Amino acid sequence: MGSQAPWNVWDERAAMRSPAAAVAAAPAAAKAAPYLDDAAQLIKSVETFIFDCDGVIWKGDKLIEGVPETLDMLRRMGKRLVFVTNNSTKSRKQYGKKFETLGLNVNEEEIFASSFAAAAYLQSINFPSNKKVYILGEVGIQKEMEQAGINFIGGPEDADRKINLEPGQLMEHDKDVGAVVVGFDRYINYYKIQYATLCIRENPGCLFIGTNCDAVTHLTDAQEWAGGGAMVGCIKASTKREPLVVGKPSTFMMDYLSNKFGISKTQICMVGDRLDTDILFGQNGGCKTLLVLSGVTTLKTLESPDNTIQPDYYANGLSDLLKLAKPVV
Amino acid sequence: MGSQAPWNVWDERAAMRSPAAAVAAAPAAAKAAPYLDDAAQLIKSVETFIFDCDGVIWKGDKLIEGVPETLDMLRRMGKRLVFVTNNSTKSRKQYGKKFETLGLNVNEEEIFASSFAAAAYLQSINFPSNKKVYILGEVGIQKEMEQAGINFIGGPEDADRKINLEPGQLMEHDKDVGAVVVGFDRYINYYKIQYATLCIRENPGCLFIGTNCDAVTHLTDAQEWAGGGAMVGCIKASTKREPLVVGKPSTFMMDYLSNKFGISKTQICMVGDRLDTDILFGQNGGCKTLLVLSGVTTLKTLESPDNTIQPDYYANGLSDLLKLAKPVV
Repeated sequence: MGSQAPWNVWDERAAMRSPAAAVAAAPAAAKAAPYLDDAAQLIKSVETFIFDCDGVIWKGDKLIEGVPETLDMLRRMGKRLVFVTNNSTKSRKQYGKKFETLGLNVNEEEIFASSFAAAAYLQSINFPSNKKVYILGEVGIQKEMEQAGINFIGGPEDADRKINLEPGQLMEHDKDVGAVVVGFDRYINYYKIQYATLCIRENPGCLFIGTNCDAVTHLTDAQEWAGGGAMVGCIKASTKREPLVVGKPSTFMMDYLSNKFGISKTQICMVGDRLDTDILFGQNGGCKTLLVLSGVTTLKTLESPDNTIQPDYYANGLSDLLKLAKPVV
Repeated sequence: MGSQAPWNVWDERAAMRSPAAAVAAAPAAAKAAPYLDDAAQLIKSVETFIFDCDGVIWKGDKLIEGVPETLDMLRRMGKRLVFVTNNSTKSRKQYGKKFETLGLNVNEEEIFASSFAAAAYLQSINFPSNKKVYILGEVGIQKEMEQAGINFIGGPEDADRKINLEPGQLMEHDKDVGAVVVGFDRYINYYKIQYATLCIRENPGCLFIGTNCDAVTHLTDAQEWAGGGAMVGCIKASTKREPLVVGKPSTFMMDYLSNKFGISKTQICMVGDRLDTDILFGQNGGCKTLLVLSGVTTLKTLESPDNTIQPDYYANGLSDLLKLAKPVV
């Protein structure tokens, strides 16, 4: 692999263009997507399925009916399965425990968390071994950097740092930091903000990587919590730089899979429950798209003349794949 | 004063339009601004002078030569003097000490800090007495709210708060918060971020006020430090709302002065050392503008064909006003 990044990494300006462009390109009253009648044909044409988790695999802490059997069937048919999450607080290994708890047989290589995506991106550009990453984020990013053999500083170690301001005070920073990775961080503080800012502003060529720009996240079921976008927005404002975002809706993951396994993106099917994130994300990546109605989108919304985002197909839930591909005899 | 805000409060979308519009309106090679030959005429036509401080009044911790005498002369001539700072960490009273230390005779009513601007804005819209402000910021904002008789919570009291996440946990928030004021805060933490986010997202009609969007600030002379923009950018990203910004480059202050003292904005002269902030800010506010070369801008920059922002006049320093208006006999 060359030192040039082949990946189509998301930046916010592109984000502002892409959805608008997609919307503009779609006819005002696009023909509603058809129901997935021929699941066997879809499965045959696809090498890899990428699944959004909440609303597709589980809802909150509850597994959606028929999911384990459907995943088993797809595996038996030789399909590659990938589970996507913008959560960067855990490593793939740690995130795997959620699947385990729900009784799902998913291994860590199948989980594409944004913490892993940050490490995979740095590997993909041959991040120099004499450079370091500064982490403004939680332990998941640290663990993925370790796993990838990338030098890093920051992360949870900087949680209790304080800045004692005296006249003429200067914060020293490591000139070898070649990338700052910003993710969700419950322990954000001004020390970390200033450290990240200094590296990006003062180290020539220093990258600014955001795991995701989600406004809110579901830390608990009881309410929405300020998400990774808050931390990324903070550093964006102090550096006046746009982040390279590796989590959804960046198409980095599709590019990565396509490149790593030598498959065409049309052989990837993105399965999700949200039109303006999952389906648009799949379309931006050049993939097939399947909307499931087991999450936030209703058939009425899908078929509304106001809706301009149409997946290739829709199904009631993931288990439709099982029913349709293997009809009960 | 009615309950409708007469003020032209800055929002970031307007910010993105205004400078571009100003630049577009200016001819590609605008005639360079003339030297201030007739200072007496300028002084006569102006009722209020607004001064940027750094580069105009002082440089770092050093007073610029001739400034005290010039200010004294303007006062004797009956001019109103206003000193502007985006610093929100101190109240006007506290900020006044910097002037005192430098031997300048400036009283707190003449200082327009962004902490005061936030309180003045809330007063201007008759912020209801049964509502509260949540402060994500330092003591300056708190003191100005106190002074203005506005109820508030948050601020320095929330500096050491931590969030202990347990399944199903809900952060309660005060439903009476009708405005969140975000300013520079060395003690920013996730508790404050989530509290501010909840108020803005969940309290109907809750305002989001930013003191300023400065990327960096000069906490010490030794380096640039992440500024108030970092805190505002953070809440902007978690709420997906644009802030109302009351500090520079908002023209709120000009509107406020014009309204409060019944003067036309053409009777106000903005004096600053930066073309793309101070001078543009004065022009956006409909004021006269005077560039002084005692700060970051050189005559070469001003006269460069690439420069499209031209003040009404330029002078070498504030003391030119003294020399020109009262020539030595």
